Amino acid sequence: MTIAPASRLDAADPLAGFRSRFVAADDPSLVAYLDGNSLGRPLKVTGERLAAFVAGQWGHGLIRSWDEAWMDEPVTVGDRLAEVVLGAARGQVVVADSTSVLLYKLIRAGVGARPGRGEVLIDRDNFPTDRFILEGVAAECGLSVRSLRAPHDAGVRAADVASAVSERTALVVLSHVAYRSGFLADMAAITRAAHDAGALVLWDLCHSAGAVPVELDACDVDLATGCTYKYLNGGPGSPAFCYVATRLQEELRQPIWGWMGAGDPFAMGPAFQPAQGIRKFISGTPPVLAMQPLKDMVELIAEAGVAAVREKSVALTEHAVALADEALAPLGAVLASPRNAAERGSHITMDHPSFAAVTAALWKGGVIPDFRPPDGIRIGLSPLSTSFAELERGIEAIATELRAQAGP
Amino acid sequence: MTIAPASRLDAADPLAGFRSRFVAADDPSLVAYLDGNSLGRPLKVTGERLAAFVAGQWGHGLIRSWDEAWMDEPVTVGDRLAEVVLGAARGQVVVADSTSVLLYKLIRAGVGARPGRGEVLIDRDNFPTDRFILEGVAAECGLSVRSLRAPHDAGVRAADVASAVSERTALVVLSHVAYRSGFLADMAAITRAAHDAGALVLWDLCHSAGAVPVELDACDVDLATGCTYKYLNGGPGSPAFCYVATRLQEELRQPIWGWMGAGDPFAMGPAFQPAQGIRKFISGTPPVLAMQPLKDMVELIAEAGVAAVREKSVALTEHAVALADEALAPLGAVLASPRNAAERGSHITMDHPSFAAVTAALWKGGVIPDFRPPDGIRIGLSPLSTSFAELERGIEAIATELRAQAGP
Repeated sequence: MTIAPASRLDAADPLAGFRSRFVAADDPSLVAYLDGNSLGRPLKVTGERLAAFVAGQWGHGLIRSWDEAWMDEPVTVGDRLAEVVLGAARGQVVVADSTSVLLYKLIRAGVGARPGRGEVLIDRDNFPTDRFILEGVAAECGLSVRSLRAPHDAGVRAADVASAVSERTALVVLSHVAYRSGFLADMAAITRAAHDAGALVLWDLCHSAGAVPVELDACDVDLATGCTYKYLNGGPGSPAFCYVATRLQEELRQPIWGWMGAGDPFAMGPAFQPAQGIRKFISGTPPVLAMQPLKDMVELIAEAGVAAVREKSVALTEHAVALADEALAPLGAVLASPRNAAERGSHITMDHPSFAAVTAALWKGGVIPDFRPPDGIRIGLSPLSTSFAELERGIEAIATELRAQAGP
Repeated sequence: MTIAPASRLDAADPLAGFRSRFVAADDPSLVAYLDGNSLGRPLKVTGERLAAFVAGQWGHGLIRSWDEAWMDEPVTVGDRLAEVVLGAARGQVVVADSTSVLLYKLIRAGVGARPGRGEVLIDRDNFPTDRFILEGVAAECGLSVRSLRAPHDAGVRAADVASAVSERTALVVLSHVAYRSGFLADMAAITRAAHDAGALVLWDLCHSAGAVPVELDACDVDLATGCTYKYLNGGPGSPAFCYVATRLQEELRQPIWGWMGAGDPFAMGPAFQPAQGIRKFISGTPPVLAMQPLKDMVELIAEAGVAAVREKSVALTEHAVALADEALAPLGAVLASPRNAAERGSHITMDHPSFAAVTAALWKGGVIPDFRPPDGIRIGLSPLSTSFAELERGIEAIATELRAQAGP
């Protein structure tokens, strides 16, 4: 099979022009940035937006901006994210905290809504924070954690979930796109399988939101959370978001009763009364400054269209697999991601015993993939900021470094 | 008594020059900003710092910056805060989350370290989020909350605590400076009284850190937390900090087992092993972008010196009380803060039945104090950004508006 050259793919890419909206996209010292699924590049507009925010809403508006804009932002930014990226109607998404803290709140809320069910189910290959947080909640609530064991290069399927859930299962916690393999789960079928057993499902969207179409409402999802610093380019440690389906909001209670999750935060009354709707999942003062950058990325995705973003993402991962087959497989690297694009998110992982050393060397030369233990290079392809040429330079550099490591 | 004119006080103020370092300090439309204890003004350097951060550490360094700088920042920024502002040795302070989330983690950790003690003690006048979070933890852990009832214009004293604590008390949660009255608690004596009964103490430093000298180590404090958007000028929703005394770090466990609180976050191992030291109190990905602005403010405080900051703060609140006595008391306003400067933080509150309406009118004219239910105007005096002239303009405007509300 002949692989199309990157130059032709870039020339034919309808989204190619978006790359120039990002900082340092053409910095020659950054040969290939293949880690936008760990930390997305900033938009060029982000520096200006932050400086303008400091001078304007913060510096001039001062405390008045809480009334005029900021109090609503966790919900208004959440609503826009819901509309553009998450396939969710208004009033179900809020921006707050970190993914870990929101996982804690949602897991506690979820298991609290299924009293008498003593088991929670997780994928062994879920991202560590999901497993750790669930382990902590299970320990404090006296639940047992049951781990699905998907093979390394595949992921959890609806049949696996259907055979694991039972009347003992309170909650199923899964990643939409697996952080290591990139496996894209069938959200609709898995959610249905869990619901058939009366369990709730919590989806981790960290590796899908912004790169893969997400249809939370259509899939009848109960709970979801994700970060905004990967494909939503919110910056290091930018706040997370959570989704709680409207039908569950009245029933569910989260454990961190902060003032901003109270019905009237400024009443300063004697007892906590949770807010109505999605606001009850907020705890502390919303991270307003930190949620400014992601707003522009959500609008950029809206401008490009999620379907087009997915099309570019698939083309990039297809190209990555083809290049890896051609250049890396002969050197002993093994694809640890699905070959079927329909089962793949926006990154692929290759395994090779030398990849820890290879990654360290590559970073020095401005080729930046991610290393994932024990022996994986993860190649993240952020659809609006990654070019085919950049991907090609990256794979070539990995091959060159692999050969150098192997010695003469 | 003759009140010194503001012009003379400003001319004699050794810290007067610091005011020009803040955004919009001389914006004529901002007649008087008296709410720096709710949201501190941005430093002029903040906009530039953020834009440079976007272009540099984020845009160019990309994911490499986690290794080169960001992983350590929650602790290095915490250490500097500890040294300059909190009177704490290294390795005891970390920047993370929001005050509400940290209160939850610390309260859970604290009561977990006192098993068999079924009571937690709080000041009725603590900030609502402290009371609400404690109420939530008490409900889930089966504890009873005992409320101290300090009179409105005073606060909790060591004798009140000594007579309330017992062998049943697990934890005492108090504010160093009360959010409404501005009462400054005797941290050393109260901590001693709680320790005498075997209880732990958690101090909320939101209204003291950056304006009032804090000596956590010298006062033998167990736990503390506070926000960074008031006198530390971190911006709206900037992350909070927490302090856990070294002697307690091994024993205490916090409930939100996120990956960044694990011993080796990138091992991605199967089971959670908490980090050693203060890092175990981190949960999710640190809010790196959002913790940039406060760094410059901590350095500004270091440059001025905490003792000089306190001296200016006392001079400002003394002037505020004198002006209020002269101009507001005759109109029916009542001081709801301590008259003794040694028992006062950096704000005062005046009560008057018309103050809700007065505040709304003042805001439109660029005079910005804070309204606190049911009838209080809170006048916050941020020592490095507030001038005596600004304070005087603010009090005059309150008097004018009170007279206008009273009618002809």
